[in-house]
Amino acid sequence: MFACIEDLYPLCRSITGDGLRKTLDRLGRLVPLERHEVASGTRVFDWTVPNEWNIRDAWIKDASGQRVVDFRESSLHVVNYSTPVRARMPLAELRPHLHTLPERPDWIPYRTSYYTETWGFCLSQRQLDPLPEGEYEVCIDSTLAPGHLSYGECHLPGRTTDEVLISSHVCHPSLANDNLAGATVAAFLARSLAGIPLRYSYRFLFIPGTIGSITWLAHNQATVGRIKAGLVLACLGDPGAPTYKRSRRGDSAIDRTVEHVLRSRGGELRIRDFSPYGYDERQYCSPGFDLPVGCLTRTPHGEYAEYHTSADDLTLVRPASLADSLDLTLAIVRALEADRTYLNQNPRCEPQLGKRGLYRALGGLRDSGVDEMAMLWVLNLSDGRHRLLEIAERSGYPFGVVQRTAEMLAEHGLLAEAVE
Amino acid sequence: MFACIEDLYPLCRSITGDGLRKTLDRLGRLVPLERHEVASGTRVFDWTVPNEWNIRDAWIKDASGQRVVDFRESSLHVVNYSTPVRARMPLAELRPHLHTLPERPDWIPYRTSYYTETWGFCLSQRQLDPLPEGEYEVCIDSTLAPGHLSYGECHLPGRTTDEVLISSHVCHPSLANDNLAGATVAAFLARSLAGIPLRYSYRFLFIPGTIGSITWLAHNQATVGRIKAGLVLACLGDPGAPTYKRSRRGDSAIDRTVEHVLRSRGGELRIRDFSPYGYDERQYCSPGFDLPVGCLTRTPHGEYAEYHTSADDLTLVRPASLADSLDLTLAIVRALEADRTYLNQNPRCEPQLGKRGLYRALGGLRDSGVDEMAMLWVLNLSDGRHRLLEIAERSGYPFGVVQRTAEMLAEHGLLAEAVE
Amino acid sequence: MFACIEDLYPLCRSITGDGLRKTLDRLGRLVPLERHEVASGTRVFDWTVPNEWNIRDAWIKDASGQRVVDFRESSLHVVNYSTPVRARMPLAELRPHLHTLPERPDWIPYRTSYYTETWGFCLSQRQLDPLPEGEYEVCIDSTLAPGHLSYGECHLPGRTTDEVLISSHVCHPSLANDNLAGATVAAFLARSLAGIPLRYSYRFLFIPGTIGSITWLAHNQATVGRIKAGLVLACLGDPGAPTYKRSRRGDSAIDRTVEHVLRSRGGELRIRDFSPYGYDERQYCSPGFDLPVGCLTRTPHGEYAEYHTSADDLTLVRPASLADSLDLTLAIVRALEADRTYLNQNPRCEPQLGKRGLYRALGGLRDSGVDEMAMLWVLNLSDGRHRLLEIAERSGYPFGVVQRTAEMLAEHGLLAEAVE
Repeated sequence: MFACIEDLYPLCRSITGDGLRKTLDRLGRLVPLERHEVASGTRVFDWTVPNEWNIRDAWIKDASGQRVVDFRESSLHVVNYSTPVRARMPLAELRPHLHTLPERPDWIPYRTSYYTETWGFCLSQRQLDPLPEGEYEVCIDSTLAPGHLSYGECHLPGRTTDEVLISSHVCHPSLANDNLAGATVAAFLARSLAGIPLRYSYRFLFIPGTIGSITWLAHNQATVGRIKAGLVLACLGDPGAPTYKRSRRGDSAIDRTVEHVLRSRGGELRIRDFSPYGYDERQYCSPGFDLPVGCLTRTPHGEYAEYHTSADDLTLVRPASLADSLDLTLAIVRALEADRTYLNQNPRCEPQLGKRGLYRALGGLRDSGVDEMAMLWVLNLSDGRHRLLEIAERSGYPFGVVQRTAEMLAEHGLLAEAVE
Repeated sequence: MFACIEDLYPLCRSITGDGLRKTLDRLGRLVPLERHEVASGTRVFDWTVPNEWNIRDAWIKDASGQRVVDFRESSLHVVNYSTPVRARMPLAELRPHLHTLPERPDWIPYRTSYYTETWGFCLSQRQLDPLPEGEYEVCIDSTLAPGHLSYGECHLPGRTTDEVLISSHVCHPSLANDNLAGATVAAFLARSLAGIPLRYSYRFLFIPGTIGSITWLAHNQATVGRIKAGLVLACLGDPGAPTYKRSRRGDSAIDRTVEHVLRSRGGELRIRDFSPYGYDERQYCSPGFDLPVGCLTRTPHGEYAEYHTSADDLTLVRPASLADSLDLTLAIVRALEADRTYLNQNPRCEPQLGKRGLYRALGGLRDSGVDEMAMLWVLNLSDGRHRLLEIAERSGYPFGVVQRTAEMLAEHGLLAEAVE
Repeated sequence: MFACIEDLYPLCRSITGDGLRKTLDRLGRLVPLERHEVASGTRVFDWTVPNEWNIRDAWIKDASGQRVVDFRESSLHVVNYSTPVRARMPLAELRPHLHTLPERPDWIPYRTSYYTETWGFCLSQRQLDPLPEGEYEVCIDSTLAPGHLSYGECHLPGRTTDEVLISSHVCHPSLANDNLAGATVAAFLARSLAGIPLRYSYRFLFIPGTIGSITWLAHNQATVGRIKAGLVLACLGDPGAPTYKRSRRGDSAIDRTVEHVLRSRGGELRIRDFSPYGYDERQYCSPGFDLPVGCLTRTPHGEYAEYHTSADDLTLVRPASLADSLDLTLAIVRALEADRTYLNQNPRCEPQLGKRGLYRALGGLRDSGVDEMAMLWVLNLSDGRHRLLEIAERSGYPFGVVQRTAEMLAEHGLLAEAVE
């Protein structure tokens, strides 16, 4: 996963354009992606797909013709979606177009202006400070013209048409944790699931933030009812602990599942209530959709110093964190896949486990049988109103133990899967 | 307000009679009062309006003809509703008719006997102690005869017939905090609202305690369903912090509103659950009515030493406390008036705030926009199931910010008021 | 009660057989018991009533013919339900049939093998250690043959057919706390209730554990719907504090009643959630029945060191604990019997208590009337939706005060019992 992020890092992505397309090309080598191109001007709910932006080069040259700011060094140097410009002007006139982070003098900020036409440069305070007054030449060799918005979709059909949605944004330029980490974990998760028989169908979206999810929702209104659970994946490479932000519903299957998986892993439990800011869960959880989609990150957006600066680079992302994030998403998928409701086939009194070889032969011992207790819990609560996850929570057994116990009891004919 | 209390303080009020009428006269100078006179003997639910009580003078004279207890000095000196008496008797025979507070030797207690015919005097222990044995002459120049029970009502019509009830008792003689303070704050609240366009209709009751609210309820059974919220106001002049006692329902609009207003003011939150003792909320919250009426006081009845004694005088009531109480009731009214449910007119995905000038132009900044967050909260939760007060509580924003944000979004056509 | 336990202690009980029958005989002297005999081989749900087991003698003799383990000394020395055996074998061959408690070298463990045919001896580690290798003679003079399963039932009819079930197991051999204490408390409770007019009907079951409750449930499926509350009684003689384990429902009448009674007694509140292990509540609370049956013990099974060993003897059981347990069960029955819903007959405003002599004559006093407050609480909450127990919990008054207050108000016509 780290190599994938290294490969994608230098590309100048945006919400449209060739950087985004190249990113989808490379992710498409990991997992089959259905590509969509939506024309500029297309109405999507209250929004309009904007013109396509592409950039070849950008610089500020000093009086000696020396590049003092150079897009080739960092894609962050240009305000994303800057209109083309070629001009000479004194520093005083240029200053309103220059963005720095005075409190972090070595870092370049990340700025965008998708829906208001303007241009600008981002640079470190240490680059700006020594610039003498006088004339500068500025160039942004970009185009902003009718084209398309691109996104990629990977659909893994399962036994049912009920869907799990995994969404990550791929519109940020040279930023590593936000969100090459999220998109990469999503792609590797898709690759891990691609060969496996699945109960749910899985849909992975690699989209530009905000306008991408709005576009996707506008074009898939008729079928979003299939989505039974979903996750927005973002910021999954930093060394912080995993953090889950609940869906707007707060107690849907994805909420209970992720919380259970996180709790069973131990460590600090970082669970947040839904709030209407963040990533594309803003759109999935808008009141007219209210989809059961939460957001999984490590350190959440805005809570690490490097967020939306040039310091969100390859040094912030750790292979171990990426591996742990993938492992966590796989555990969540396993729990979603396995969670179901069984019906006890001998609901009146306990079944006689002993005659089936499921009970210790010699009675009178102190409570010793962990597995017997798990059997008794699963049998007692398999009344059609408790899913395995609830049984795990109520009994205190790990989900995996409950699941294996239920499967074993089902093999003995003591449980049957309930129709949901 | 303090001047009003000073003016009313010397009158000898009771649950009927001229002291009560004079009190209503004076409150009627502040706010138009519709006066009601209900004849003695009228049946009101399980009760009967008692005979009317009036008193001109009362005293105990010692052997030398000197007044040792004198009604002209304090209206508390006579057990309220004492039957007329004119007699000579030795101190030993008089003693059962004398009430003191031995643990507070300088204070005169307040005693009543509305429904059991008797007579008596209240005096300080220091007055009683030096009295020699021997003959005394006692006189209570009162009348207890068929007449009327009086109360005043101020109705401020609003855009709807849904009503807010504000009730305070005006039957206590020379006691300042309980309850001239409550009645005065109520009258000034009514005066403040009189000139303002209102959503709800407001009904202010100035009534004798218990029998007054029972009488009013008996005569208004058909229309109490209009009452959507209500407050009993009492003990609002002492220096203690405001205290809210919940309605019997516990989670009605008035409960949530007062709690929110008190919480947003900061300081110790003094909220009590409903109990069936106290002021006229006992009647409004009887199980056959169960009206959404709470009780707002500063220090609750019975919890300050001066309660129901001559020490509940003008020194206990502070102008600053009165002003704070009025301010609090106005804040509650403002919140009741403003609280409503809106419907997001673009419920599918967020509306594009930027094209309406409602969003910062330059993206990529760290979360900075407090107002943007308020907009997002209001939009996300305006699904027809959340009132503004709930949005304030869920988001952590003050009610006023949420309200202004909603109005601004409604002006832009993004919200429309929901029919309730 | 202690004498009864002393009398029963030496008998070798099991889930069938003459020891069990003798136990029922003796309990039948305390309270009339209807005896049931269910034939071996009878199918009861997933189970089959086993062959009947009886034992006359058992021993291990050393080379000198000396009994080194002797059933006449303790009924625990034989694995309960051991098949007959008469053989000579070296110690090495005998060892797998010998059970000790190495960590408690003076105690004999209690072991059973009801449903797997085997034989064995239980002895203390101190008995085993000095045994030399060499030949031993073993004898278990038992029979395991078609016969019957016995249980006793005591039905006390009340005014209604709604039932309270009290169940205790009587299948353990010479163990005192588990469960002669429970069965004895149950028998004395039945004796206490036998002469009293009762609202509910009471059904006491003295049954072998597991197979006994399964058999009873199988034979009474049609009428278990009458059971409105129930308790499994066990381990009620040790010096620990009472412990209540909730029914599977968790908030049924028995749960709320026992919790209220325990809370009002003060001291540490030992309440446990339901779990599917323990005594016969496992069967009563199986999902197909889900009866409102909790379990009352002092120290719960498995949580005291002597549990299921020879140290659970007469020294573990205290007369004071037995008396306290009986007292507690009586308090629970009293609360169940008395708890009901009343309807306020004057629900609109308070009734005038004074004219009925129910209110202090002289008003204006500080809140003094504890009884008046109880009256006001009962009147206010008697709206058909609150039982007396809930009124006690909400008001903070002891159940007895609330009950007497309600009866007094009913005598005055202010309350009427609601139809449930």
